[in-house]
Amino acid sequence: MIMGRVSKVLSWRFFILFSLTVNVGFFGSILYEGVVSLKSLYTAREDQTNMCSVKDHEAHISRSCSASTSITEIEDRSKKVINFDHGDPTMFERFWQKMGDKSTVVISGWQLMSYFSDPKSLCWFLEPEFAKEIVKLHKLVRNAITDDRYILVGTGSMQLFQAALYALAPPDASKPIAVVAAAPYYNSYPLVTDYLKSGLYSWAGDAYTFDRDEPYIELVTSPNNPDGYMREAVVNRSGGMVIHDLAYYWPQYTPITSPADHDLMLFTVSKSTGHAGTRIGWALVKDKEVAKKMTKFIELNTIGVSKDSQLRAAKILQAISDNCQHLGNHDDGKSFFKHSHRLMTKRWEGLRDAVRQSGLFSLPEFQPRFCNYLDRVAEPHPAFAWLKCEGDIEDCESFLRGHQIITRSGKHFGADSTYVRVSMLDRDETFNLFLERLSHINS
Amino acid sequence: MIMGRVSKVLSWRFFILFSLTVNVGFFGSILYEGVVSLKSLYTAREDQTNMCSVKDHEAHISRSCSASTSITEIEDRSKKVINFDHGDPTMFERFWQKMGDKSTVVISGWQLMSYFSDPKSLCWFLEPEFAKEIVKLHKLVRNAITDDRYILVGTGSMQLFQAALYALAPPDASKPIAVVAAAPYYNSYPLVTDYLKSGLYSWAGDAYTFDRDEPYIELVTSPNNPDGYMREAVVNRSGGMVIHDLAYYWPQYTPITSPADHDLMLFTVSKSTGHAGTRIGWALVKDKEVAKKMTKFIELNTIGVSKDSQLRAAKILQAISDNCQHLGNHDDGKSFFKHSHRLMTKRWEGLRDAVRQSGLFSLPEFQPRFCNYLDRVAEPHPAFAWLKCEGDIEDCESFLRGHQIITRSGKHFGADSTYVRVSMLDRDETFNLFLERLSHINS
Repeated sequence: MIMGRVSKVLSWRFFILFSLTVNVGFFGSILYEGVVSLKSLYTAREDQTNMCSVKDHEAHISRSCSASTSITEIEDRSKKVINFDHGDPTMFERFWQKMGDKSTVVISGWQLMSYFSDPKSLCWFLEPEFAKEIVKLHKLVRNAITDDRYILVGTGSMQLFQAALYALAPPDASKPIAVVAAAPYYNSYPLVTDYLKSGLYSWAGDAYTFDRDEPYIELVTSPNNPDGYMREAVVNRSGGMVIHDLAYYWPQYTPITSPADHDLMLFTVSKSTGHAGTRIGWALVKDKEVAKKMTKFIELNTIGVSKDSQLRAAKILQAISDNCQHLGNHDDGKSFFKHSHRLMTKRWEGLRDAVRQSGLFSLPEFQPRFCNYLDRVAEPHPAFAWLKCEGDIEDCESFLRGHQIITRSGKHFGADSTYVRVSMLDRDETFNLFLERLSHINS
Repeated sequence: MIMGRVSKVLSWRFFILFSLTVNVGFFGSILYEGVVSLKSLYTAREDQTNMCSVKDHEAHISRSCSASTSITEIEDRSKKVINFDHGDPTMFERFWQKMGDKSTVVISGWQLMSYFSDPKSLCWFLEPEFAKEIVKLHKLVRNAITDDRYILVGTGSMQLFQAALYALAPPDASKPIAVVAAAPYYNSYPLVTDYLKSGLYSWAGDAYTFDRDEPYIELVTSPNNPDGYMREAVVNRSGGMVIHDLAYYWPQYTPITSPADHDLMLFTVSKSTGHAGTRIGWALVKDKEVAKKMTKFIELNTIGVSKDSQLRAAKILQAISDNCQHLGNHDDGKSFFKHSHRLMTKRWEGLRDAVRQSGLFSLPEFQPRFCNYLDRVAEPHPAFAWLKCEGDIEDCESFLRGHQIITRSGKHFGADSTYVRVSMLDRDETFNLFLERLSHINS
């Protein structure tokens, strides 16, 4: 049995080497469990003592320098459940570790105690410091117009999405306004639209098939969650209102071709900087009355938004802007977006390799375009992979679950169950284990 | 005209002296604008140079040591709008200033990035450190049973209130479940219950007059907002479910007579520690299925709760517990609850004096009871004063607005407009100005 496992390990060789390429080097000075673990696997097969000494600047590696330990780890690895159901953006942790104190926030017990950030402002719970950093970052990345817009803060962009529905829905209509999005759409949209059975708005499904002659709200996510394509509104009928969810319109995920210029745009630090636990999103809103009603929603829903988190988000955005502004090309490692773009490029290359190796799956193809931020042609590298099981596999989610890989079925996104959505944003260790495992799934 | 103002100022003498009594001494070493401002008024009348030198350890006082400056300030004070509409708990800032670094939180850029705090826990977004401090504080104050309860965190207790409605309402009922509270009730309850026109629940008004033979949810706020009285459920019929909002069940506001032991209890740092800007509340829930559904609501509403704020709240609660545990009586100034109880006592004494002086208003009377926390008999000192205009004043809110005092009319609380709710939690300067002004309103 042990021999069987060892032979299985040998066939992993290519992927371990690949993983090393992906992981080692960029943050060579950071101890990261993923790197250590992959290395210990490598040393178990090739030249245990050798590898342990060559890379001894990466601490703790010696703890894995015996074949028996490694075989246990291999066993653990093959059993480990890989949960890529959520888009938890933990891959960005290493960048922020490297940044050190520049992004550290310190809050004294007596600070930020009031409900109010700026009582005279339309959005009275928005910290002015955070608003300033939002404008600065958008101007730097050139991904959205901020002039002549109201800036609103929310407890993540999901709260702002609900605020937008509340603001756009007619308050006294005889029936709820229809809410639509072109399939495949973010699976939370129908759930969040309908969980309170609101009389103001209700989910009406795929925008492509929406044919009612009545007012509607269309949700446009661009790049799209789950499939990563750039999107535009598809209904385009009178009485229609559009909410643009631009959570992924950042250089690490897609080329920034022009500043977005819509009536109502949503962003979030969860995906732009990787700080999902901070629960901070923002909206750029053209119409004053809509902005007022959105503010009212957040007042009723949570009486404003955590000031601690806004202060932290301001610090994070400031760190990004400062580093991006003052760098030459040789210092790209300190530029959050350039660094993240490089990581996403490598992850997508690895994923396409694994899919090719397996032969059982397919992935969307994307057109390279000129990115104004990177100042060169670049390919999209979405935060999710919209993976399709080919051949006679009808339920891709169940199929992958059999391999201890948890993904989200296409059926939740208004598509069919041959598709799954796979997070591309987990930590290196888990992502590389996923690549190894995926590449070995074959008929 | 200037002489007129000066003579008006002279009649303020009693209140200025009173204010000095309230303000000076406890945090003598803290520079506080309120104290400075009141003092400079005093020096304008009595002995300018004298007062300036006597209390010179309170910095910056010299800037106000001239009669002309003080007259301008007096003019400003008489024009200043006092906004006591909200219960913004800024009076607690001074305590936390005094506490210094013990309650300071430091968060590095790479920390708390994941959506998850504890993926295996029922409430997967609750920081274990915060949960630990909640239990510790309740055990210390003895105001609520935490054993055999699920602890949930929310973006303030208002989000948890909505989570509770969502969890208790039958999901497939033919009509929304009735939500009631005994008048006078917190005016946000009807607004927050109905703003989305939910098909799950709807506001049904005063619990005292609820006579439908059908399931219902009763909200019990104890001590009550707005009137400060201790409350129990009043409907007590089969099919009824109760949400206990215990935001004010803390020693500074009311005697702690026994640990609360209800199925669903809500708390918030906004009122317990004064950190309203942090937007953190918690629920203690007996039933597992209710706790699960409440968690689901918060997942759909805001995908969890800010981890930064939870970490900060944990630090704040820890500072309170540590100081309360290790103090003798001589060190009461460091005990948050004892210090705050003393401040509230003085504020209520001042308010009752002002009301007596004016002769146009009345206040609720409270029975002293034994407080297990203070270990002595104590009177309630609610966070809001439920002020009644006597005589022929029918609209108390408008009447006070004419005196530049903004309050919230009784009509919003299911009561009549001879009542207003007045915040007792503003900063010293504003509160003392309010007392001065109120005492001079007479027929």
